Order: sequence, then C-alpha cells, then structure tokens
Amino acid sequence: MRTISVGVFKIATRGPGDVSGLMSLIGSGAIDPTSILAILGKTEGNGGVNDFTREYAVAALCAALAPKLGLTPHEVEQRIAFVMSGGTEGVLSPHITVFTRQEAAARPAGISGKRLSIGMAQTRDFLPEELGRSAQIAETAKAVKAAMADAGIADAADVHFVQIKCPLLTSDRVEAAAARGNKTATISAYSSMAYSRGASALGVAVALGEVASDISDDIMLRRYDLFSKVASTSSGIELMHNVVIVLGNSASSVSEFEIGHAVMSDAIDSAAVMSALKSVGLDVDLGTTPQPGRELVNIFAKAEASPNGSVRGFRHTMLEDTDISSTRHARAAVGGLIAGLAGTSSVYVSGGAEHQGPAGGGPVAVIARLTD
Amino acid sequence: MRTISVGVFKIATRGPGDVSGLMSLIGSGAIDPTSILAILGKTEGNGGVNDFTREYAVAALCAALAPKLGLTPHEVEQRIAFVMSGGTEGVLSPHITVFTRQEAAARPAGISGKRLSIGMAQTRDFLPEELGRSAQIAETAKAVKAAMADAGIADAADVHFVQIKCPLLTSDRVEAAAARGNKTATISAYSSMAYSRGASALGVAVALGEVASDISDDIMLRRYDLFSKVASTSSGIELMHNVVIVLGNSASSVSEFEIGHAVMSDAIDSAAVMSALKSVGLDVDLGTTPQPGRELVNIFAKAEASPNGSVRGFRHTMLEDTDISSTRHARAAVGGLIAGLAGTSSVYVSGGAEHQGPAGGGPVAVIARLTD
Amino acid sequence: MRTISVGVFKIATRGPGDVSGLMSLIGSGAIDPTSILAILGKTEGNGGVNDFTREYAVAALCAALAPKLGLTPHEVEQRIAFVMSGGTEGVLSPHITVFTRQEAAARPAGISGKRLSIGMAQTRDFLPEELGRSAQIAETAKAVKAAMADAGIADAADVHFVQIKCPLLTSDRVEAAAARGNKTATISAYSSMAYSRGASALGVAVALGEVASDISDDIMLRRYDLFSKVASTSSGIELMHNVVIVLGNSASSVSEFEIGHAVMSDAIDSAAVMSALKSVGLDVDLGTTPQPGRELVNIFAKAEASPNGSVRGFRHTMLEDTDISSTRHARAAVGGLIAGLAGTSSVYVSGGAEHQGPAGGGPVAVIARLTD
Amino acid sequence: MRTISVGVFKIATRGPGDVSGLMSLIGSGAIDPTSILAILGKTEGNGGVNDFTREYAVAALCAALAPKLGLTPHEVEQRIAFVMSGGTEGVLSPHITVFTRQEAAARPAGISGKRLSIGMAQTRDFLPEELGRSAQIAETAKAVKAAMADAGIADAADVHFVQIKCPLLTSDRVEAAAARGNKTATISAYSSMAYSRGASALGVAVALGEVASDISDDIMLRRYDLFSKVASTSSGIELMHNVVIVLGNSASSVSEFEIGHAVMSDAIDSAAVMSALKSVGLDVDLGTTPQPGRELVNIFAKAEASPNGSVRGFRHTMLEDTDISSTRHARAAVGGLIAGLAGTSSVYVSGGAEHQGPAGGGPVAVIARLTD
Repeated sequence: MRTISVGVFKIATRGPGDVSGLMSLIGSGAIDPTSILAILGKTEGNGGVNDFTREYAVAALCAALAPKLGLTPHEVEQRIAFVMSGGTEGVLSPHITVFTRQEAAARPAGISGKRLSIGMAQTRDFLPEELGRSAQIAETAKAVKAAMADAGIADAADVHFVQIKCPLLTSDRVEAAAARGNKTATISAYSSMAYSRGASALGVAVALGEVASDISDDIMLRRYDLFSKVASTSSGIELMHNVVIVLGNSASSVSEFEIGHAVMSDAIDSAAVMSALKSVGLDVDLGTTPQPGRELVNIFAKAEASPNGSVRGFRHTMLEDTDISSTRHARAAVGGLIAGLAGTSSVYVSGGAEHQGPAGGGPVAVIARLTD
Repeated sequence: MRTISVGVFKIATRGPGDVSGLMSLIGSGAIDPTSILAILGKTEGNGGVNDFTREYAVAALCAALAPKLGLTPHEVEQRIAFVMSGGTEGVLSPHITVFTRQEAAARPAGISGKRLSIGMAQTRDFLPEELGRSAQIAETAKAVKAAMADAGIADAADVHFVQIKCPLLTSDRVEAAAARGNKTATISAYSSMAYSRGASALGVAVALGEVASDISDDIMLRRYDLFSKVASTSSGIELMHNVVIVLGNSASSVSEFEIGHAVMSDAIDSAAVMSALKSVGLDVDLGTTPQPGRELVNIFAKAEASPNGSVRGFRHTMLEDTDISSTRHARAAVGGLIAGLAGTSSVYVSGGAEHQGPAGGGPVAVIARLTD
Repeated sequence: MRTISVGVFKIATRGPGDVSGLMSLIGSGAIDPTSILAILGKTEGNGGVNDFTREYAVAALCAALAPKLGLTPHEVEQRIAFVMSGGTEGVLSPHITVFTRQEAAARPAGISGKRLSIGMAQTRDFLPEELGRSAQIAETAKAVKAAMADAGIADAADVHFVQIKCPLLTSDRVEAAAARGNKTATISAYSSMAYSRGASALGVAVALGEVASDISDDIMLRRYDLFSKVASTSSGIELMHNVVIVLGNSASSVSEFEIGHAVMSDAIDSAAVMSALKSVGLDVDLGTTPQPGRELVNIFAKAEASPNGSVRGFRHTMLEDTDISSTRHARAAVGGLIAGLAGTSSVYVSGGAEHQGPAGGGPVAVIARLTD
Repeated sequence: MRTISVGVFKIATRGPGDVSGLMSLIGSGAIDPTSILAILGKTEGNGGVNDFTREYAVAALCAALAPKLGLTPHEVEQRIAFVMSGGTEGVLSPHITVFTRQEAAARPAGISGKRLSIGMAQTRDFLPEELGRSAQIAETAKAVKAAMADAGIADAADVHFVQIKCPLLTSDRVEAAAARGNKTATISAYSSMAYSRGASALGVAVALGEVASDISDDIMLRRYDLFSKVASTSSGIELMHNVVIVLGNSASSVSEFEIGHAVMSDAIDSAAVMSALKSVGLDVDLGTTPQPGRELVNIFAKAEASPNGSVRGFRHTMLEDTDISSTRHARAAVGGLIAGLAGTSSVYVSGGAEHQGPAGGGPVAVIARLTD
C-alpha cells in the first residue's frame, strides 16, 4: 500500500491578488510547490455572478507559481485544483488553505490510525443545457469515486468533505444552448449558480450512497430532503466542468492532520458545530481552553437561507431582500456563529447549500492538527 | 415605596406595517394598551439613512393604538417610546418587544429580590450642530438619570440596558445649521448616525459614572476606550431629540421578569453571550436544555465592525465594502452568533455600537421570565 | 354624451410618508378630494420585493385622505387607485401625480378636439398559481376594456398609457398554492414580479389588439416580440388583483391636458423620447425653449435591462450584477436620459418592462398642459 | 518642432481580465505595442474601495503586454499609464481606450491645424496624510504642466481633458500616518477617495489657471465653486502617487483625431453634451445622421450626485441611499444620458466629480476621428 503525507497550510491574504504569504512559505522551504494539490480560498467579492475576485485570485496564484513549477500560468491552472469561494461577509477573513500531498517513504513510528488524505478528479466539460440536470449529477458521481480512489479512501464513511467547483450559465452560454435548439435549466445567471451547485451536490450524494442514483431532473431545487452530508459546491464563471476534491481520513496517510464533520440542521445549529469540533478531539469550551495535543486548522462549512423562509419557526428576510443576495446574508450569519464557537474568524464558510445538508442547513467539517 | 409591575411581550411581525399581533393581545386582554410604556422593534429595512421601515412601523402602531387609547396617532407617538432598529440581516427575525408598566397593589407572596423595571425620559430637541457633540452628551446624561428615577433604580449597578433613540443629520438639517453660520459634526447623513449614536452612548456612560463627565468633542468616534457597557443607541430620521429607556432590576418591581447583561469584547465573543444568559439563570447548554423555572424572553445586543479592521488579528472586510454598509455586515454576523447560542433568531441585534462597549464589541442584555 | 373634466397634479414628496403637498392643495381648494380617481407615485425604495415605501406611501395617503372623504383609510384604498412605483435611482425625484375626474356641465368655448381622459377598472383576486399565466392575461384584458369604456375612449389608437398594478408571489403564497397541489410560475418572489408584470402587459396587448388573444403560458418572458406599446405594469406585495388605469384622449373630455406616446426601442432611444414630446406639441430643443401654449406636466416611461445582455451591440452588465438588481440599473439609466431631454428629473420611470415595448425598450408617454 | 502621431483605439472587453481584443490588434499589426502610452478603461466593479476589477484588469494587461515589450509585468505597469475607472452601471459598457504615440517623419499633406495629442507625467509618492491636502494639489499642478509639455501643448485653452489616477486611504495607511503622529484628512476609506479626487482636480485647476494657486486645505470638498473644467480624477487602492494624462490639441500632432469638451452644469445637462459633440464637428441630431467626415471615437465624462441634494430644484435620493453608493447612481444616470445622445453605450463615464466641473456637474470631452 502506498503511503502518503498530506499537508495543510492556512494563509491570510491582504487582497484577492495577494500571493505573498504562499510565496514566503515556498521561499522558506515550508511548502514544496510541486506537492501542491489544491488551494481553497475565501475571496472578498460578492460571491455572485459578477464576483471577479475568484478568477483574479486564481490568475495571481497561477502567475506566481508558474516560475516555481516551470510551467506556464495556464498549465498551473490545469495541474492544481483552485476553488475560490467569494464572499467574506461579516467577520469572515480572506484566506487560502493550501493542500499538499507527497509520497512518504514509510509510516513513521507514533503515527497510527486513519489520517487526513486528499484526492482529486475532474469531469468532462458540460454543455450549458446539462447544468443542473442529471448529466451533471452522473458525471460528478463518477468523479467523486475517482477522487476517493485517488485519496486512498475506500469507505464512504471516511469521506468528510467533498469540495466541488462547478460552472454557471451566462447570457452567452444560454444563447449557445438556444442556438442548438436546447433550453437550459434557467435563463438567469444567478439562478444557474444554484442549479449547478445542487446537481453537483447530488452527484456526491449518489457516489456516497446517500441518495439513489436514478434522480430525475425535476427534483432539482425542490426535493430538499435529498442531500449529501459532506458536499460543498461553489459555482464560478471560469470553467465549464466540475473539479472534485475529496477530503477524508485514510489508513494510507501519515499526515499530522485529522478531519471530521457534522451536519448543521439549520443556520443556527450551534450543537452541530460543537459536534464537528469534538469529532476531531477539539475542546468545545468555546475555544478558550484548547485540548492539549490538538489545534484547530480550519473549518469548512456551507450556509444558505432556508428555502421555507424561516428558522425554527421565526421568519427570516433573506430571500426577499432585493438589496443583498441571500447567499451573502447566510454566509455572514453562519460565519458569525462558527467564528464565535471556533474563536477565530479565519474560517471557510461558503454560500449556497442546495442539496448540501438539509434545507437551510449544511455540512461543517473541521481539520485539526495533532500537535504531539 | 411605590410597587410596580412590568410586562414584556415579544411579538413576531409579518412586515413593518403589521400590527396584528399586538392588536390581538390587546383584544384578548393580555395587554392593557394604557399600560404600554415602550415598544422596541427590529424592522426589515437597511438600518441606514433611507430606512423608512422604522417610521412606517411607528406610524402603523400609532394609527392602530390611537382608538384604543382615545388619542390621535400623533399623541400616541408622544406618549409611548417607540424605538425601531432597522436591519434584520442574516437570520434575524422581525419582531417587536412591548414593555408595559402598571402600579401594583402590593407585593405578591413569593416575589422577592429585585425584578425587571423600566423607566423613561426625553431630552429637549437638539440643533443639528449639537449632534455628536458635548451638548448631546450632557443632555442625554440628565435624561438617563431621570429615567433611572422613573424606574425606581438608584444604583447604577442595577442598570442593565439603556436604549436610546437619537436623531441624525439630513441635507436639510446640515443646511439649516450652515444658514445659522454653524458647522455640523459631519455633512454626511450616514456618518451623522455614528456621531449621534456615539454621543448618546457617552451620555449614558457619564450618567452611570463609567467615564468622567468633562468629555471634549474631539474624542468622539476616536477614543473608543471610553464607552458605556449598557448603552444601546439607534439613530433615526424621524426625531430631533433623544428618547431614553432604562431597563434594570429594582426592588420596587414585582415583575415576573429579570434582566442581566455582559459586554462582548469583540464580534465573536461567545463567552460574553453565555455569561449574559447565565446572569439571569439561563442554562448555557446552547438552549437545548433550558433550566427549569426560567425561560428566555429576548436578547438585546449591539454590533459593529471593529474600527481597526480586524477581529482577533484576522482582517475583516466590513469597512471597505462599498456594496453593503458595515452595520449590515455586523448585525448579520453577531445576530448569527447570538441566535445560535440562544437557539432562536428572534433576538434584537442593533448596529452601530460606537462608544457602546469596547471598539468592535458591544453590550448584550438578556431578559428572562421566572416561570414558577 | 357625458362631458368630463380631468385634472393632473404633480406633487414633489419629501419622503414616502409625506402627504403635505397634497393636503395643501386640498386645503387651498385646488383639488377637490372627492374627485381624485388615481394617484401614481415614485417612491424611494428599492423597487424590489422588500420595498415597503410603496405600501407606506399608500397607507399615509389613505390615512390623510380618510377624514377629507368621510371614509376609513381602508375604504379610501378601495376607492382611489394607488400605484406606487418604487425606485428613484440616479436623478429621479420622488413625487406623486394625482388624477382627478369630474362631470363637466358643458363643453367650454375654445376647447376642441380630444383631450386627456382617464378610466379605471379592476380584476378579481388571483390565485398565486394564476399569476404570470393566461388567467391573469385574460382577466386583465377584460379590465382594460372596461377602463376604456369608463374613460369614454372607443378607439384603441386613443389609448396612450395603461398603468397596471399587479401582485407578486411571496413564500406564503407559493406555499398556499403548493398546499392546493398547484405549482406557481416561479418560486422566487423576485422573479414573480417579472411574471406578473409580463402577463399584465400582455393583457393590455390583447385588449388593444396588439397581439392575438390566444396566448399560451410558455411564451411568458420568452417571446419578447409580443408586447404592448402602451402598457406600464408594476407589481407590489400589497394586493392580489390587478388595478387598471387607462390614460388617453377622448372627445368626451374637456380637460386642459393632452397625452401622447412613443415607444423606446432600447434603453438609449433618445429619438423616441423626443417623438413622444413632439406628439403633444412640446418643443424638442431640450426643454430650453418651451413652445408657447404648452407645458410639460409629466413623462411616464418603462425601463428594463435588455434581456440579450447588450444595447446596440455593446454588452451591458445589468443582468449579471449580484449587488444591484437590473431594474434599479435600468431605471437610473433611462431616468437620466429622459430627465436630460425633458429638462427635469421629476419624471415617472418605472422598472421591469417585460412585454411592455420591445425587449430592452419600453413605452414613454407624455402629458402636456395647454396653457392658453 | 517635433512631429508626433497619436492613435486612439476603443476596444470592448468581455470581463476585467479580457485582453483578447488588444492582443488581436497587436497581432494584426494595427497597434505597435511599443507605442502604447496610456490605457483608460471602464471595468465592471463597484467603483468603490473594494473594487478589485481595476487592479485585476491592470494585472491582466501587464501580463499580456510583458512578452510583447520584453519587460516584466511590473515594468509594463511603470511604463504605460493605466487608468481603470470602476463601475459600468446602467447601460455603460466595459471597454478600454488605448492611446498610442509615435514620432512622425513629417507632416503629411492634407493634415492641418491642431490635432489630438497626449502627454504624461507622474508625481512623487504621497504620504497618507498628504492626500486630499495642499501637498497633493501642488504636486499635481507640477505634473500637469510637465504632461502638457510632453504633449507639445503650450496654451491651457488647448487642454481638453486631464485624466488623473490618484491614491486612496486604507485602514493600514491611516494607521501608518497615526503611528507618525499625523492625522489623515479622513479615516474612512470611502471618503478618502473623494478627498484624493478633489485635491487632484484642484491641482489641474491650479496648473491651468482656473483657480489661484494658494488654496488652503479647508476648502476641500466644501468650496465647490472652485473647480477645473477639464479634470477627471479616479482614485484606486493600487498606487500612492498621481499619474497625470493630458489630452488636448497640438500643432505638433499629425493625428487623425481631434478632441473638444464642454462642462455639464448638472447631471441632466444635455445641452452641454451636445455642445461637446459639436465642438469636434459631430452632428447633434442624436447620432442618427453622422456628419460626413467625422466619426465618434469616445466620450469621457465625470458624474456625481449634486452635493446639495437636488437637481434643478427637485430632490434626488442618491446621497441618502445606504444600499447603493452615490457614485454608482450618478454614473448610471449620466451614462444613460450621454449614451442616449451619442447613440452608443460604449462611453467612459467616471464617478466622483469633486472639484471637476461645478457641483453636481462635470467635464465632458469628445474625441472624433476625421475620416477623410
């Protein structure tokens, strides 16, 4: 059996184009650039259709890494999985999390049990009319299984977070489909983000056996009782295929990190956040007295405005606000809760949790470092 | 010694003009309209200069209460203190809290100790050029003392929340001052809200001995180490004077409610929220197992983006967002945290905490009902 | 033949609750309150789902008019047609236009030809699932014909502006339909505004013979080559039926006003605005040298972001902006153009022109007063 | 006397990172990359503090031009003046205008009179505490004179547009000043943009003799009767000095272009736009019948919400809108007017016109190509 070592580096950024933190870790030797597999980031745009901070961040990282890898910026973008989630509403702090993976010679003494592993895969490019529909679900499910194999994870129960980057529709793309005589799932760019996120999440659910595989198109964004407990999907204008990153624990890994998760049943489910922290051995006393031997690296969560317009019986106004999109509201609120419980605002909370956890809720995963 | 009874009713609203919940409680006899002293509400506007949901809510309530009180709507507005805080970002749920006060014949058996009391007072009308300056501070301090006396509270330590409604500047008001040859503290309507909130909070701090009384104008919005731990101030376009409502515990009261508070040192200070809940005997196990004999009525908190641009060392982006005002960001985040810890999104979180608690933090008060 | 006199009064407002201008005209005798048939207003909300300035303005007007008419506020709302269009983006200035109608004893000497007339009608209440579909179209067409008869207009060519106020969907309404086993045209409140506006406009087109009457549901918001050249529709949360106001010229009218219109083919069609001005004898030299004998009263126009994403071949960004809704962008831009050509920013430009004029364009009507 | 040739190329962009149009013109030989002096662009961000589309566009252009010029991206940024104005509200269409300059061998037959010329200069870096104050004014004035000389323009009357790119304050910069014991003109990043734009504009006014040179700091953003008729200034986070670009007509130029300007006295001043078009021989009949021999290249204008809150006596709501910044409102409205009169939405309208034209108005310059 292959033995791999996985590294996780959380780096604060001063703007979407700021690569200095990563460059400095590469310069000091702390990060070997050839080992970088994926970079997940929170950038400070609006997280919507016209959020260019995501592509700007990716462009800046590719340009900076290119000479380190002896590749063109475009080749860097093909090699490393970049997932930028726009929107640092409320207290959320812009940052990137860099995942590295290397072959390890042998299992060091003192490392036992399953440890953090990471695997990756991609789907083919989609046609605009496939977004938000069964084709996107099925292709995503295949990619999730491929990514699990890549991570050395056989058991679905060891998968704790599946991050997917998926496309959205633009006016051009809708027109291209129409020119072929096909209707897209929606003609609104903004709505298409929800469709694409939802189908990608259902792809995870199919792959992990959380839902049956014969899903029909018309349950999309309607049957919210069908969902994955570990999917986190973000749509962006810059690609036409899905990129799948599986995070879980594997016996093949000798990483010093561990991952766990829970599912928030609604946007104020503090118990789930506590449970996720506990699942990786982190003290739940509000971060004030960390358990010896463990430290928090990052929390990855999805947030959304509950589609029924209320939280535990009380009306919210997120869905009827024409000034601020509901994804921005939801990230701000869930980000505030998680930051409060974790004791840090440098956490990854991404918006739009369609079919990612129950309606109005979402997955929350925690990575801890075993410090001794 | 006078014996008073204070009632607290939290009522969800379906819109800023919705008075049906209150009317229904009056209709059923649960609320005697003549006993209503103050109504604090969260309305679903933007909480900024052009938030008309506040004045609309007040207009609707006055129109509805007028026939019940045998007064004109305008007279109702003079008689009852209405404080509408705009902005139900994130999970926050629109609602009003109605405070009633009546003389009680005698202290019932089984009621001992200090219980929730409420007192009210008003300042004179301010000139536009007095807003955000020492005149507003001094007049507010006088009104706070008058409101304490009205509440039967002698000891500053028994004051747990002082809600103030204060004016803001408009183009017209700035021009009126200029026509008199006077400069206002700022010419921006939006900025004037911060000045007015800050001066009002310092008025509370002066009255309660939290700061010295000889405050000069130039510390306003600069010396954030000067603050009140219990002040909550909201500015609105609809008035030119300060309305002061003091909430605390008094031996004169035979209310079935109790109030306590803590101070959030920053926007993610979950420990302070827990402490405030504990101060009125509420179980802190995330609301899942309420302590017998107590139930949560409401939480009143102030939120703001920390002026130094970071929270516990991590940069936030609230102050540099041209799309969403920082007060909206802050309410969403702090509202998410408090709702998560309280187990309900029907809480009162108001934005703009200048000189209300430390920079970036703010007061958090809790009212509990003693149920046996 | 009945002879009627129609008055038009444009009154600036200082806020959505400001009724002082109207009250003052009533006080001076300039307006007989019993003659008020309709009030069209521009209020300063966001024009979206959560724009409460519309209902606030109506509530304030009803409360103020009630004692003048010896009615309750609710009865006033039934008697007078209130159409509040939210959104005064850019230079647009908040105001109301009051239309009065009275029987005239006889045709005064010197009044000849067709003059401004106004007629009104209402549909029945719609079910949520009827909005944006053929039922709404057919009922609206019936109401338009009734309103034409009410205005004394027989020829469709004499109809120059048909203002309709129509409902929208809320979460509650969508759920009510679902509870009956019916799907609504959309589940998004914001999208439902477009559907309701579109169906109402097609109702006008059917009534005036601009399109065939057998329209199927699936052309809604897709076949933008089907439209009315005179329809202006605004959706609001406060009603469940359509209110139809027909403005045109009638031989029965002895009004001192005249109305004309043109159709903007896109959002920058300055020629159409000029043509509309000319149609009522107004000089087109940019308002600097008004033609003797005529003065501008108001301009009523619809604006929208062209659904194909461009204007005369150049890409616009209105539809892909997650921060500002496209209706706000469009009102600002078209408002700027019309104000520039008319020489005044006190004009009525309303957003969301689905099936009102060609895609990306919209009707523009002008009322002039004959001053000699 | 040196003879120069100036080229102007307007290129539509598909996003802030789109450089394909420029690359294609370079590829075809239409543009010699070594001749590029300046690039002015409209990008589709919010135009505010957190508008990263500006720096993203510059980064993309520098990366693309670097191999063409044999320079690093950073060296490209030093060599070419990039001015990106964020905000394409309403109909405004994202694009860049590329200015080239080359030595010409001799004056071709048939070219007579003054033709379009361009000159450039830069100030030194400013300290944060110098922004919005006399140091910024004086240094800018020096740079304007240097840029005039560079353009071969001696007479101030031949200067028709001076574009300046200037810095803004961030929390970090304010703190840096405070650490030196100095106060900045404002502590708000958003407000600092206005200060910096205003001081830069006054620098132009000083250089061109439009105002006296001994300007005191306290007139900044107050004495709006002091202004330049040709200044257009944009602030951005990405620099700490002013970059000055002078556009005018010069006898040294054998360009096929000509420039002229007018001053809008308010945001609806259509007569001024017409006058600017006429000044370069363009027919004013709304662009429908262009005069033989001339074609419109681009229009450069500044827009702002009038600080007194009204336009020709009618109240606007731009300054009291907490949801949308006034600069966005103003660009949308003025952009709509200019696009309507010019017959194209591909025009450059930039927000924030402090001391650039009279209060509420701004300069409008037009470049035409002489086609025969």
